Amino acid sequence: MKYCSVCGSEVRVGVPDGDNRPRHLCDQCGTVHYQNPKVVAGCIAHWEDKVLLCRRAIEPRLGLWTVPAGFMENGETTYEGAMRETLEEANARVAVDDLYVTVNLPHINQVYMLFRGRLLDLDFSPGEESLAVELLAEPEIPWDRMAFPTVSEALKLYFADRSQGTFPVRMLDIVREGGLPGRYLVRNIS
Amino acid sequence: MKYCSVCGSEVRVGVPDGDNRPRHLCDQCGTVHYQNPKVVAGCIAHWEDKVLLCRRAIEPRLGLWTVPAGFMENGETTYEGAMRETLEEANARVAVDDLYVTVNLPHINQVYMLFRGRLLDLDFSPGEESLAVELLAEPEIPWDRMAFPTVSEALKLYFADRSQGTFPVRMLDIVREGGLPGRYLVRNIS
Repeated sequence: MKYCSVCGSEVRVGVPDGDNRPRHLCDQCGTVHYQNPKVVAGCIAHWEDKVLLCRRAIEPRLGLWTVPAGFMENGETTYEGAMRETLEEANARVAVDDLYVTVNLPHINQVYMLFRGRLLDLDFSPGEESLAVELLAEPEIPWDRMAFPTVSEALKLYFADRSQGTFPVRMLDIVREGGLPGRYLVRNIS
Repeated sequence: MKYCSVCGSEVRVGVPDGDNRPRHLCDQCGTVHYQNPKVVAGCIAHWEDKVLLCRRAIEPRLGLWTVPAGFMENGETTYEGAMRETLEEANARVAVDDLYVTVNLPHINQVYMLFRGRLLDLDFSPGEESLAVELLAEPEIPWDRMAFPTVSEALKLYFADRSQGTFPVRMLDIVREGGLPGRYLVRNIS
């Protein structure tokens, strides 16, 4: 951020009065431009013992596998975001069950909220952002070709919980270890 | 938003190629300015049978009561946000238990994430944004002077669940009914 989105003047970084963090400030019109984490809403959608995975057609991680998930939009609820992403990325309709796992990713200012969902029919197909969409049983999951650790960790928990016949609501932290790309520390919070 | 925060040119509203929603677009530098919901992190902090409430010293709802909660900051986790807000608004230290309730507020683009927490000591006091901080038992809650329906509804659920001896993770929608200020529709999602 270099310019004020309200008045177009150059902004500076400084700590506003009564605040304790640096923000982008506009001295011209007085606006403080806050930046906050974004919610990524998504769905672990199942049909019988299989879950729906998408192969990404876009960067980052083009060609790798994920569950349908994306940035929550203004005007929708978290689970509506999860349903919308499932429709957009996999042309699939789900009945959303409960929130399953929240993943804190503080190094990239994201909070994943993944819901469990039940596919309503088998009429799915790749959306614009997917190369392929498949229903995969646990032994078929391409663990070494997953797009994001968030999704791998969530799916590991999901299969472990499913084998116990219960899905407690879970929370994970995933943080970049030592600031190194590709190395992550996973903490089970609940 | 009138100006591009990257290059300072005027922005226009339009639907980008491959998208399906209007965004603020900069024709000069090509930036698409997305706007997304914000997370409000907070804490229902208890000591024995009482919960910690703050009387707001700031608008909106100055003088009314709430639990410590505020916009999640970049670089923190959801529960760290809840702990930080509890410290800032009530000078109170908590051990955070689990996520308790997520509240979708699509009409104002917010998602509340309220955690259950246990006060670590009784050395609390009003922070800069609070006029008073008090530990209140259920019959002492000022239900008619609560700042936000989010907090009232969350506390009602909390006391009901506590009386059953269990705290399932819950989700609510609260939407403005008929677009009328002060009238809300509450939906129990889970």
